[in-house]
Amino acid sequence: MTPEHAVTYARRHRHRFLAELKDFVRFPSVSSQPKYARDLKNCAIWLGNHLRRIGLERVKVIPTRGHPIVYGTWLQAYNRPILLVYGHYDVLPADPLDQWRTPPFTPTVKGDNLYGRGACDDKGQLFTHLKAIESYLRTGRSLPINVKCLFEGEEEIDSPNLMSFIARNRNALRANVAVVSDSPMLGPNQPAISYAGRGALRLELEVRGPGQDLHSGNFGGAIHNPLQSLCEIIGSLHDENGHISIPGFYDDVRDWSENERAFMARTGPRDAQILSAAHAEKGWGEDGFTLYERLTIRPALTVNGIVGGYQGAGVKAVIPSHALAKLSFRLVPDQDPKRVERLFRNHIADIVPPTVTCAVRVLSGAKPAVLDREHPAVRAAVFALRKGFGSSTALVRSGGSFPVLSMFQQLLGIPTVMMGFALPDDPIHSPNEKFHLGNFYRGIETSIWFLAAAAERLKRARQLDKQTVWSSRNGN
Amino acid sequence: MTPEHAVTYARRHRHRFLAELKDFVRFPSVSSQPKYARDLKNCAIWLGNHLRRIGLERVKVIPTRGHPIVYGTWLQAYNRPILLVYGHYDVLPADPLDQWRTPPFTPTVKGDNLYGRGACDDKGQLFTHLKAIESYLRTGRSLPINVKCLFEGEEEIDSPNLMSFIARNRNALRANVAVVSDSPMLGPNQPAISYAGRGALRLELEVRGPGQDLHSGNFGGAIHNPLQSLCEIIGSLHDENGHISIPGFYDDVRDWSENERAFMARTGPRDAQILSAAHAEKGWGEDGFTLYERLTIRPALTVNGIVGGYQGAGVKAVIPSHALAKLSFRLVPDQDPKRVERLFRNHIADIVPPTVTCAVRVLSGAKPAVLDREHPAVRAAVFALRKGFGSSTALVRSGGSFPVLSMFQQLLGIPTVMMGFALPDDPIHSPNEKFHLGNFYRGIETSIWFLAAAAERLKRARQLDKQTVWSSRNGN
Repeated sequence: MTPEHAVTYARRHRHRFLAELKDFVRFPSVSSQPKYARDLKNCAIWLGNHLRRIGLERVKVIPTRGHPIVYGTWLQAYNRPILLVYGHYDVLPADPLDQWRTPPFTPTVKGDNLYGRGACDDKGQLFTHLKAIESYLRTGRSLPINVKCLFEGEEEIDSPNLMSFIARNRNALRANVAVVSDSPMLGPNQPAISYAGRGALRLELEVRGPGQDLHSGNFGGAIHNPLQSLCEIIGSLHDENGHISIPGFYDDVRDWSENERAFMARTGPRDAQILSAAHAEKGWGEDGFTLYERLTIRPALTVNGIVGGYQGAGVKAVIPSHALAKLSFRLVPDQDPKRVERLFRNHIADIVPPTVTCAVRVLSGAKPAVLDREHPAVRAAVFALRKGFGSSTALVRSGGSFPVLSMFQQLLGIPTVMMGFALPDDPIHSPNEKFHLGNFYRGIETSIWFLAAAAERLKRARQLDKQTVWSSRNGN
Repeated sequence: MTPEHAVTYARRHRHRFLAELKDFVRFPSVSSQPKYARDLKNCAIWLGNHLRRIGLERVKVIPTRGHPIVYGTWLQAYNRPILLVYGHYDVLPADPLDQWRTPPFTPTVKGDNLYGRGACDDKGQLFTHLKAIESYLRTGRSLPINVKCLFEGEEEIDSPNLMSFIARNRNALRANVAVVSDSPMLGPNQPAISYAGRGALRLELEVRGPGQDLHSGNFGGAIHNPLQSLCEIIGSLHDENGHISIPGFYDDVRDWSENERAFMARTGPRDAQILSAAHAEKGWGEDGFTLYERLTIRPALTVNGIVGGYQGAGVKAVIPSHALAKLSFRLVPDQDPKRVERLFRNHIADIVPPTVTCAVRVLSGAKPAVLDREHPAVRAAVFALRKGFGSSTALVRSGGSFPVLSMFQQLLGIPTVMMGFALPDDPIHSPNEKFHLGNFYRGIETSIWFLAAAAERLKRARQLDKQTVWSSRNGN
C-alpha cells in the first residue's frame, strides 16, 4: 500500500483506464437540456457502479430535483483524516456541432489527446482520483486516507440542488479537507493551485418607464427613456479611475500586506501576460494596482448583458417601456454579498431619477474565499504535483468565483484544494474539447501521491494544533 | 363637374366602393416577407387596373429592385396646378395571428368598421382619393385639378427604392403640391393636419474591446468592458436637464417666435394629454419647454436598442468583446443631418476612452420639414375637412419624421399636405386593424372638396406670387 506500488499499478493499467474513461465520456450527460435527463441518470448509475467496482463502499446514486448525486466512501483508515473528493459528471452542450472534427460523444484518441465533450471538464479530471483510489485498493486493499466522493450532475447549470443537499447531509459529508480537479494549469509543465477566489453577487437591474413601448418620434424628448436611464445609472457606477461609486462599497475590502503583494508580484502573471490572454491592448481599472491585483484582490463590477429595446437588424423607432441589465460583482475579503446587496439597493434608490422606477433582483451570491498557502493539504498538493509532473507549482489567486468552494467552507467548514489538470488551451467549453493523455496519467499519479501526503501532513498538523487551519479571515 | 355632383355620386355608390376596398384589402401585400412578393405584384396590377378603370391615364405598374410602383395621371386641366397623390399598398405582417378576431386578409365589416390588415394603413385612406377622382370623372368627365398618383409597395420597409425612383423621374412627378392620407385624426370628429415633422438621423454606435468575449471572473476589473463603456458614453450624452451634450448640437436649432409658441400652446395637446397617451406619470426633458414643444420644436436623441453581452435567462459571466447601441436623433429646423452626423462623430472621437474603440455607422438621415400653415393647399385641406367632417381642423406639429415628405421637398421642391383619416384608436400596426366606415365615406367627400379647393387656391396664389410658397426656412 505504498504510493510506489500504486503508481506501478497505475502505469500497468493505463490502457484499461483510458478505455474506461472513454466509456464515461460516451454518455451525453448534458445537464442543461431536458432531453438528456435519461442519459444523466444512466451516467450516474454507471459512475456509481464504477465506484463500487474499484472498492468504494456505501455507494449511492441519490435523486435530486434535478440530476442525481453520486456518493461513495472508504472510511477504514482509523485515526486518519477524511478527504472529500468533489467532481461533476455533467457536461455543457456540444453545440455548434458542425465545428467538431470528431463526434463529441464518440471519444476519440488523436495524438496525445482524448477528444470528446467532457473529456477534460470534468470527467477526465474527476477520473484521476478514482483511478488513484483503485490503484491503492488493488495493490494493498487500503487507502492512506479516508475518502468521501461527491459527484454532482448539475455543475454546468450552477448546482441548483447541491447547497441544500450538503446542508441536509452535513454528517455524511463531514471531512477535513476537500479536493477538486476542475481547473487549468498554467502550461504543459506548470501545475497551479488557486488559493483564492473572489466572491460573487449576481443581480438584475430593471428600469421601468412608460406603461408601453412608445414611438420615439412621437415621444422622444418628452418622456424619459428607460434604456437611456439604465445607461445613465450604469455609467455612474464607476468613476474615471475604475473605482466603484457605491458609498461604503470598499469599507470591508482588505488591505493586503506588502509581503503578500510582493509574493503576488513574484509569482503571478505580469500585466503583459494578462493582456495577451485577454486579446486586449490596454489594461483598465484602479490606479495603484497591477492587473493581477485588480482581478484578484480588488472587487469588480461587470455588466454582463443588457436587454432593452430593438435588437434586430436595421431600425425600429421605439422608446422601450423597460430595460434590463445583468450585473455581477466580484467580491474580495472581507466583503459580504448580503451587505453589498444592501449597499447596492440603497444606492440605486438614491440615484434613480423621479422619471423612472427601478427594480433589483438578486440571482445568487457567494462569499470570497482564500486558503492559507501553508495549509497542510496545500503543501501536500504541491509535493504531489512535483512527484506527478516533476515541476514546482504556482500558487495563484483566481479572479473567478467557486461556488462549491464557498459551500464547503460555509456548510462543512473545510477548505478546498483546487488541483487541476486541464491545459490552458484545452477548449473545455467549445468544440473539440480534449484532455491531454499525459496529464491524465500524471494526474492519476499526482492523486496517488496526494492521498498519502495529505494524510501525513494533516495528521502532523493535527498533532501541532487542534484547530481547523482554514479560515477566510486569517488568510495571507 | 361641380364638387356637389361628385359628392352625390359618391354617396350613391358607397356600397360598391366598400366592396372594391375589400377586394383591395384581400391581397396579403406584406412587403417585409419575401414569400408575399407575388401577392404584392398582383396587388399592384389590380391597383393599376383600378386606376385605368376610374379614368386615369398613362397608368404604369413599374418594377423596382423590390416591389412595384403604381403610377397614373390625369393632366387635362389646362392652366391648372398639379397635385401629387401619394399612398402605399403594402402592409405590415399580420402577426400575432391568434389575436385576430377575423382573418386579417378576409376583410370583414362589423358595426361601423371594416376589419383587415391594411384596411386603414394605407389601403383605405389611399382609396378615398381614388374614389374622389372617380366621382368627378364619372359625373363630369374632368377633374378640377391635374393629378399624378404615386403608390408604392415598400412604405412599411422604409421605402428603399422610392428615393432613386423619384430622382430618376423628376419630370414625370413634377407637381405643385402633394397630398398624403396616412395619419391619424385627433379624435372621431377632430381632423388634424400635421404641418411639421422632425428630421431624423439613425445610427449605430459600436464599442469594441478585447478580441474575444472574456470570463468576467478572470478579467473583471482589469479590462474595460465595452458594454460598460457604451453605457458610460450614452450616459454622458444628456445632462441632467435632458439637454444633449454634443458641442455645437444646438447651434442651428431655430428659436421660434412668441407668436408661434402661443399658437402651439393654444392648439396643441397639454402635458397631461401627452402623458396619458404615453402611459407615463412624469414628463422629462428640457426645462422651459412644454412637453408638446419638447417633442416637436426641440431635437431629441433616443437609444432605441442595445445589443450587448448575455441576454438569456439567468447568468453568464461574460465581458462581451463588443457592444452596440441603436440611436436615433430627431432633428428640428434648421438642423442638418449631415452636420449632426459630423458633430456626433467628432464628439464620440473626443470622449472615447483609450481602453476601447468606437465605430459609428449611419443608417439613414432625413431633414426636418415644416409647412407654412398659410399655404393655399393647407387652407384648401382645412376647408375640405370642414365640408367632409363638419369640424374645424387642428393644425399640429408631429414629433415623428416623414421620409416621403423630405423626399418630395428635396427632390421635387414641393410641400406635402398630410390629411389623414385614421382614428387614434385604429390599431394600424396591431391585430384587428380597422378602418371606420364613416371616415372612409367622409374621407372621399373631403378629397372631393379638396381637389376643387386646392385648384382654386393654388391658382389664386400663383396669380399673387410666382414663387413656390413652400420652404423649410421661412416657415412659422
